[in-house]
Amino acid sequence: MSVNTEEIPYDFELERLVEELKGVKKVLIQLPDGLKKYSYFIVDSLSRSLGNIEIMVSIDGGYGACDLKISEAKLLNAEALIHFGHTQYSLQEVPIESGKLRIIYVPAFYRGSIPESSVDDLAEALKREGLQRPSIVATVQHIRLIGELKAMLEKRGFHPIVTSPGRLLTGQIIGCDYSAVILSKEADSVVVITGGLFHSLGVSLSFEGPVFQIDPYSGRVGDLRKDKERWLKRRLAEMYRARDSSRWGIIVGTLTGQYRPSIVERLKREISSRGMKYYLFASSVLSKDNILNIDSENIDAYIVTSCPRIPIDDFTESPLHKPVLTPGEAISVLEGRIEVYRFPW
Amino acid sequence: MSVNTEEIPYDFELERLVEELKGVKKVLIQLPDGLKKYSYFIVDSLSRSLGNIEIMVSIDGGYGACDLKISEAKLLNAEALIHFGHTQYSLQEVPIESGKLRIIYVPAFYRGSIPESSVDDLAEALKREGLQRPSIVATVQHIRLIGELKAMLEKRGFHPIVTSPGRLLTGQIIGCDYSAVILSKEADSVVVITGGLFHSLGVSLSFEGPVFQIDPYSGRVGDLRKDKERWLKRRLAEMYRARDSSRWGIIVGTLTGQYRPSIVERLKREISSRGMKYYLFASSVLSKDNILNIDSENIDAYIVTSCPRIPIDDFTESPLHKPVLTPGEAISVLEGRIEVYRFPW
Repeated sequence: MSVNTEEIPYDFELERLVEELKGVKKVLIQLPDGLKKYSYFIVDSLSRSLGNIEIMVSIDGGYGACDLKISEAKLLNAEALIHFGHTQYSLQEVPIESGKLRIIYVPAFYRGSIPESSVDDLAEALKREGLQRPSIVATVQHIRLIGELKAMLEKRGFHPIVTSPGRLLTGQIIGCDYSAVILSKEADSVVVITGGLFHSLGVSLSFEGPVFQIDPYSGRVGDLRKDKERWLKRRLAEMYRARDSSRWGIIVGTLTGQYRPSIVERLKREISSRGMKYYLFASSVLSKDNILNIDSENIDAYIVTSCPRIPIDDFTESPLHKPVLTPGEAISVLEGRIEVYRFPW
Repeated sequence: MSVNTEEIPYDFELERLVEELKGVKKVLIQLPDGLKKYSYFIVDSLSRSLGNIEIMVSIDGGYGACDLKISEAKLLNAEALIHFGHTQYSLQEVPIESGKLRIIYVPAFYRGSIPESSVDDLAEALKREGLQRPSIVATVQHIRLIGELKAMLEKRGFHPIVTSPGRLLTGQIIGCDYSAVILSKEADSVVVITGGLFHSLGVSLSFEGPVFQIDPYSGRVGDLRKDKERWLKRRLAEMYRARDSSRWGIIVGTLTGQYRPSIVERLKREISSRGMKYYLFASSVLSKDNILNIDSENIDAYIVTSCPRIPIDDFTESPLHKPVLTPGEAISVLEGRIEVYRFPW
């Protein structure tokens, strides 16, 4: 085995899993792409402790808890589905029919902590603009760092806010649900603990004021306002490009959590009531090629109702020859109010 | 509507569909990529005849009847799933649990016919080698041309053979089932009616003697022996590359028809009985990236049990840095008989 436990920066809660999986003969494991490299360690550890258990690792995407491999687990006769890296999905519209299949979430909490020097950098950035009440949010991996950062900022004289969005953990954000940000009414800024741009971009599109990111891996403190401006301009351009569209392709999601009938119905009403036309497309994992395969002169623009991050993250830097919008963007375009940017829905 | 019915070279059996769909409120349509451009014509025609019906078009792959979008249709509350371009899947290992969902296959028969000049070319090619008894096979789109070609060859003095493989239509082949070829014991050659290389390559890998292709679109007659030789050499090289492997990744298919527990169990036994190790991976639509995400020094070679065409068609021209084999290839390697090429299983 090539992975040393000491080197693994995430808590896979293997002891809890061994307890929960006692007597289980077959299990399917899902991990986000970034955690897939640890699958051998997980499989070997569980096999060693549980003996006669058959473990399969899903090598499909694993974009979030909206993408639970339930029908796959049922087909494979698995008794449990272990979903690493996410918590239960907050925006589930239709009930999950898991039957006898047990679903076990393992958030994979980050084991590290935030360096003092990063907090110093952050404190300086906040002070420079007279910000006193930052709302602290984090992805689930880094949720345990929220309390730590809150205490460290308080020690430096700030009054950080941590919000409970109800359907997620306290301070938690996911790619399409920024309630923790939106509900932080008294906050004058947001600090997001996360690596990469994906979640911090989401936060910045959800909040009017300054957004800072602390990357717990690099220790780097970043200001998201430039990124937001660049991204927002391009999204507004995409909406502008769609303004004369009258024939819409509505793309409906077929991953367990990405079927959003309420949004599909809303869009159908908005389009029909304006005497416009739509076609309905079903999609599990959307790609440009999949859209191009059904593209024709019958369609002016597409609306992706499965995941609002697909148009933003996959179609902003290199757009399709036709506009591809999120539901929120489409509603603004249909209402003729391109200047209103709704995110994420 | 941009497509003229006269221009559509396939029979979508819309009158039958209108009959079968009476009273149905919601339907999901699947088409292979090549037929997706006709989806607007199909949707508009059915909507016009059936009025208050909601039609969704799947924009996912649609590789065959092994890939029935049943869980998607159920999630969407569709009452019927129309699967264009294929017939019921012949190699289904586990029962299809469709419940109340009605599955309707529309083979999409080709409307054209084979030009006399093509048959002349074919007759000449056969005569040149003294071939008298070609077995005629076709993909489902062109199955109606088999009888036509048979009569045309008989008129020219040949004795064509057409075989009923039992679980498919008479003379039919699909990407992973060439029973119609394998059961044509008395044939001295095979003629396959199809466009493209995919099915004709499959035929050539399934038959010892000469294989000819008639492309009904271009009218071109081709000899497959060169293609076979080139492809086979590369596959044997891939098997050679896997000969010292002792840690195997078995990739298990999770599309409805691509779960093949019998083959997975066989491979597990073959590997374990030799004191070797395996890891199990579950996959719906396999890509190189999906393999690379889980690749590690724990694995020497991969075996794809979902669809035997994936290693051949996707990993022959530009192979991965590790061998990716079909089950048949893997068995030969495990038995130490690399020279034996088993296809498709």
